[in-house]
Amino acid sequence: MNNHLIQLGHGSGGRMSRNLITQLFARYFANDTLRPLGDSSYIAGQTSQLAFTTDSYVIDPVFFPGGNIGQLAVCGTVNDLAVSGAIPRFLSAGFILEEGLSLKDLEKIVAAMAVEAANAKVQIVTGDTKVVRRGQCDKIYINTSGIGEIPEKHAHFTRKPAMQPGDKILLSGSLGDHAIAVLAARENLYLEEPILSDVAPLNHLAQLALEQPEQVLQMRDITRGGLATILVELCENQSFGIEVLENEIPIKQPVRSVCELFGFDPLYLANEGKMLLIVKNGTEKDILKRLRSNLAGANATLIGEITDRHPGKAIMQSVVGGKRLLDMLHGELVPRIC
Amino acid sequence: MNNHLIQLGHGSGGRMSRNLITQLFARYFANDTLRPLGDSSYIAGQTSQLAFTTDSYVIDPVFFPGGNIGQLAVCGTVNDLAVSGAIPRFLSAGFILEEGLSLKDLEKIVAAMAVEAANAKVQIVTGDTKVVRRGQCDKIYINTSGIGEIPEKHAHFTRKPAMQPGDKILLSGSLGDHAIAVLAARENLYLEEPILSDVAPLNHLAQLALEQPEQVLQMRDITRGGLATILVELCENQSFGIEVLENEIPIKQPVRSVCELFGFDPLYLANEGKMLLIVKNGTEKDILKRLRSNLAGANATLIGEITDRHPGKAIMQSVVGGKRLLDMLHGELVPRIC
Repeated sequence: MNNHLIQLGHGSGGRMSRNLITQLFARYFANDTLRPLGDSSYIAGQTSQLAFTTDSYVIDPVFFPGGNIGQLAVCGTVNDLAVSGAIPRFLSAGFILEEGLSLKDLEKIVAAMAVEAANAKVQIVTGDTKVVRRGQCDKIYINTSGIGEIPEKHAHFTRKPAMQPGDKILLSGSLGDHAIAVLAARENLYLEEPILSDVAPLNHLAQLALEQPEQVLQMRDITRGGLATILVELCENQSFGIEVLENEIPIKQPVRSVCELFGFDPLYLANEGKMLLIVKNGTEKDILKRLRSNLAGANATLIGEITDRHPGKAIMQSVVGGKRLLDMLHGELVPRIC
Repeated sequence: MNNHLIQLGHGSGGRMSRNLITQLFARYFANDTLRPLGDSSYIAGQTSQLAFTTDSYVIDPVFFPGGNIGQLAVCGTVNDLAVSGAIPRFLSAGFILEEGLSLKDLEKIVAAMAVEAANAKVQIVTGDTKVVRRGQCDKIYINTSGIGEIPEKHAHFTRKPAMQPGDKILLSGSLGDHAIAVLAARENLYLEEPILSDVAPLNHLAQLALEQPEQVLQMRDITRGGLATILVELCENQSFGIEVLENEIPIKQPVRSVCELFGFDPLYLANEGKMLLIVKNGTEKDILKRLRSNLAGANATLIGEITDRHPGKAIMQSVVGGKRLLDMLHGELVPRIC
């Protein structure tokens, strides 16, 4: 037995599980709601509506430039809540660990979760740990589920969004950083200018946008499937279409270079700290100003608008002047990106 | 490409993911809260307190006598809520799928989840699907997180339980059925009398017990770690001890036989449809009567009591007259039991 490695007994529900929970998880995630370590955690009721979401994280490699799976597991779920108009409040954390995982790596991951939870102002209040034999998972998979509170003034997010021709499409920053950072780490690419993942909680940025909540019609975090898939989802089978301008979409030069090398289209790459906003026509300048006041939104930009010219279709006006019909991602570009 | 098998593209976030969600998950889990398929689901606020819990399921084999991983994933999380004094309401479902999993098997699992959710009166309102390459998980892992509502009259469950010497310990039925059913399936044991898992939602039984909520001090579902681990957890570092009588603990004969064969102690085996109740002294007959009125509680029985004779210790009076000090499970008896 090696005391520095995860063993099957850590998932047994017995003494070793208990020790792992009290000495690692409860120590880092310390809060009064988690502390009783019961079958469920008790949280205060809210008269306002709640948002509820879940995501499993299976990213490879577990540590990547700019973050690790723990940070990602907190940010990803916080972001799903934030773009739903919710104030993220409570997270669960479900760990699937591979026998032989180093306890040091697990501690780094758990520590990063605690830091990111504090940063995003959420509490990790309930959890679970399973251990599988070597070769039955890849180091560590984490599920986080999240509960957020919908303030009354955000209630329109819980209804079907009312988008009109002329409404504007904003992007909070450059595309593809996360996917390319992970790919570079996995493939051991040598990059002159290293690319860091953009993994970050978006709730602070969402809050800035929602200072005037009625100005914002819908928000989406741009994860798997990338920008193009979301644009198609937004207008498919709708009475309106979407038009975006290729040369307004910010993509960093090193990301662009790797994309050319691999034949990737950055419109389909995953991000973990970028959002799309659909805002009422005429409010875009106001909102961009607020977004840009935050470092995470410094490169926020107007990329297109809702149109009645081609209902149900998302079209990109290319740099060279042509028009390109966008479709959802087909197949898979980069597996295990989150 | 084989259309009958899960492919990496099913986890891409693109068109294939969308089709899997709309044609499989949303079809079986159909409900108005899930239907918009947004980044989060919106649920009504509750002025009463909420219970929040999470569990990942990695059971091997995925299909076992008496159930499958989908059924287990719904029941396990429902049970954590139920024993916390909550009325289970909403579940999330996060799937990690191995490339090459048959879509037919996935459909069976999802169908079982839908049936069990209806049975337990919960809705599956949000989900996530990730696909990893062959050999990076074992067929399918499922995380379910759950939200339940704590009625005002159950509010004492959210506080530290007030147990007194003389309070009684009830067990809802026989021990070890789930663990032995899974083990038998995994090891291809030939049993003259087949053993079925006891996997079942406990909320109906909990509700019967809680018809007089003040009579019930605490409930626990007896999963990993088994009865002995829970008894130790309940009294460790407390001013009271626990005493149980071995010959009052129901264990089916075929379970007992397999235990003898493998050298297992049934007190440490996992169950997925059994609960322990600590009830006020004098109320045990009332409660047993109510529990036995339900098929799932037909063998409910009084197994012991809270005592001040040996504070902090859980002791079992054996059939032959000796006393045995119980400890939590050490190491792991049967990995991947849930």
